[in-house]
Amino acid sequence: MKDVTIVGATGAVGAELRAILADRGIEASGLRLFASSRSAGRSLEHRGESIAVESADGERIRAAFEASDTVFLAATAETSRRLAPIAVASSCVVIDNSSAFRDDPDCPLVVCGVNDAVLDGFTGPGVIANPNCSTIIALAAIAPLRRLGRLLRMTVCTYQAISGAGAAAMSELESQARAWAADEPLPTTTLGRQGVFNVFSHDSEVDADGVNREERKLETESRRILADPDLFVSSTCVRVPVLRAHSEAIHLEFDRAVDAEAARAILANAPGLEVVDDREGRRFPEPIHAAERDEVLVGRIRRDPGVPDGRGLAFFAAGDQLRKGAALNAVQIAEAIGGRGGHR
Amino acid sequence: MKDVTIVGATGAVGAELRAILADRGIEASGLRLFASSRSAGRSLEHRGESIAVESADGERIRAAFEASDTVFLAATAETSRRLAPIAVASSCVVIDNSSAFRDDPDCPLVVCGVNDAVLDGFTGPGVIANPNCSTIIALAAIAPLRRLGRLLRMTVCTYQAISGAGAAAMSELESQARAWAADEPLPTTTLGRQGVFNVFSHDSEVDADGVNREERKLETESRRILADPDLFVSSTCVRVPVLRAHSEAIHLEFDRAVDAEAARAILANAPGLEVVDDREGRRFPEPIHAAERDEVLVGRIRRDPGVPDGRGLAFFAAGDQLRKGAALNAVQIAEAIGGRGGHR
Repeated sequence: MKDVTIVGATGAVGAELRAILADRGIEASGLRLFASSRSAGRSLEHRGESIAVESADGERIRAAFEASDTVFLAATAETSRRLAPIAVASSCVVIDNSSAFRDDPDCPLVVCGVNDAVLDGFTGPGVIANPNCSTIIALAAIAPLRRLGRLLRMTVCTYQAISGAGAAAMSELESQARAWAADEPLPTTTLGRQGVFNVFSHDSEVDADGVNREERKLETESRRILADPDLFVSSTCVRVPVLRAHSEAIHLEFDRAVDAEAARAILANAPGLEVVDDREGRRFPEPIHAAERDEVLVGRIRRDPGVPDGRGLAFFAAGDQLRKGAALNAVQIAEAIGGRGGHR
Repeated sequence: MKDVTIVGATGAVGAELRAILADRGIEASGLRLFASSRSAGRSLEHRGESIAVESADGERIRAAFEASDTVFLAATAETSRRLAPIAVASSCVVIDNSSAFRDDPDCPLVVCGVNDAVLDGFTGPGVIANPNCSTIIALAAIAPLRRLGRLLRMTVCTYQAISGAGAAAMSELESQARAWAADEPLPTTTLGRQGVFNVFSHDSEVDADGVNREERKLETESRRILADPDLFVSSTCVRVPVLRAHSEAIHLEFDRAVDAEAARAILANAPGLEVVDDREGRRFPEPIHAAERDEVLVGRIRRDPGVPDGRGLAFFAAGDQLRKGAALNAVQIAEAIGGRGGHR
């Protein structure tokens, strides 16, 4: 990863990508930024220098792809479908944050720390799909626990931050809180409803079976990433008035009795996780403590009394939706393939 | 129910009890109000008249019990253990909102609309226990669904309002939002942490098995109320920054395949429930819409793809923690026993 293009550079995930790449030492001279024509024309600071944001709809994006080895797409699925083939034709490795390529068997779907091995066969140029944020956070914690036994079923109920709906939604949630405090009408242009002092079912499309798209992603992506097409996945995805870290209540069923202390030891030693499980002081993962952290926090680790024969395990996780849930995992993918991309 | 004493009259549940009794036509002349000595001395308005709040620690409470047929206890479990025997000795029917008597086989534990039949054998005076708020809201919706088949397992993840922690906690959550908007330090005296823009594990005690008291109540009370000691109950109880209605993501497993449309029809016809399930417009139960409503809202009704053989059903419920979750159910219990109490 030397020359990088970010599409969607002004959005919530784009901003986080820029911050992580700056930390990683990618200089402004090696970074090209694109956004929708609405956001193009702005200048963004990067490691002390200013970069002009260009329109992703224009012709100049082809030249940027030609000059890049790595492209991060952090815009809509539609934009990804349009631009990914152009970037791949320019010999780039494309890491796509949208859902566009997650079901494509030719595109690896990777949670770093979980199934990095699928990148071994990747010889780029090509597209690597970054999973859905809820899936990444859940699997970062669930995957290592498979050492306890064969995982038969996972039930995930989410407490999802507003950041997943984008930077404008985050800003509107803050505006709603200010309006509430001032006893003024709440702005609802972006969220379409009251978000502050409320929770609501995840705002993605609901299919004919009554399952929303976020829940379906958790199901299909988890099966693919864990390479287990028979895994049963139950989920309810819900938004809560939290700015940027998702929380998840996770109940697992294994094929044999599991021990909560063994689970705790596994989670404590797994990379990318931090156990926060102070029963005495009642301190457990909270999204405000996971925000702007690379680690996914896990706690409330216990045997689930609701599963027969001691085969159940439950825990609570909180992870930054924009970091491990999106931008950080994308950068980790780019780092994992290292020189194995197809760039010249 | 003609002459009523409320202990804990100034608290969140006490205030709701007063409002419901006022709606039911109980006049100030038939209502005696008690609270902790800290809150005693205040006067509260009731149907246009003023009632002085007396100290529950004083001797005058005995005279109040002597003059009452019905006593609502809405204070701590400790207060209930102390006062319930005195009220029963005065021939009162005691409806206790605390956890003090919920495991006592001599005290019926009742969700009205679910297991009212256990009151048939009640010949008072005596104590009737009002279940935990999360249990009431869950079972109001789960119980009628047992017509679909034998319920084997319920998994309940809660999104609980701050009202369950009392009036002071509600007020502090509002103060936190105002402080946040003013860019001032958040007050945390009552909650002990940031509640606004955060979620946190239910603040009850966690036992040696890692299960918190709220989750244990859901398990033991559900089994007792549904009269099924073999029912498996999984739960994770979490507080969210919502003022007064609890939401719950509920996943059920039956002994046979279940049909989501049949479930919807049952829920639509069940008393005390309202189906809010607009998939097209993405309008589902939200706590702000359940607040100050008697009905528990249910929606997101769907077959749970995470249970084998089509035996799973999932839905989302939201109910006012202070109404059906506490005060309303307590008043419904008093009404259900009608003249069958032991009062003179």
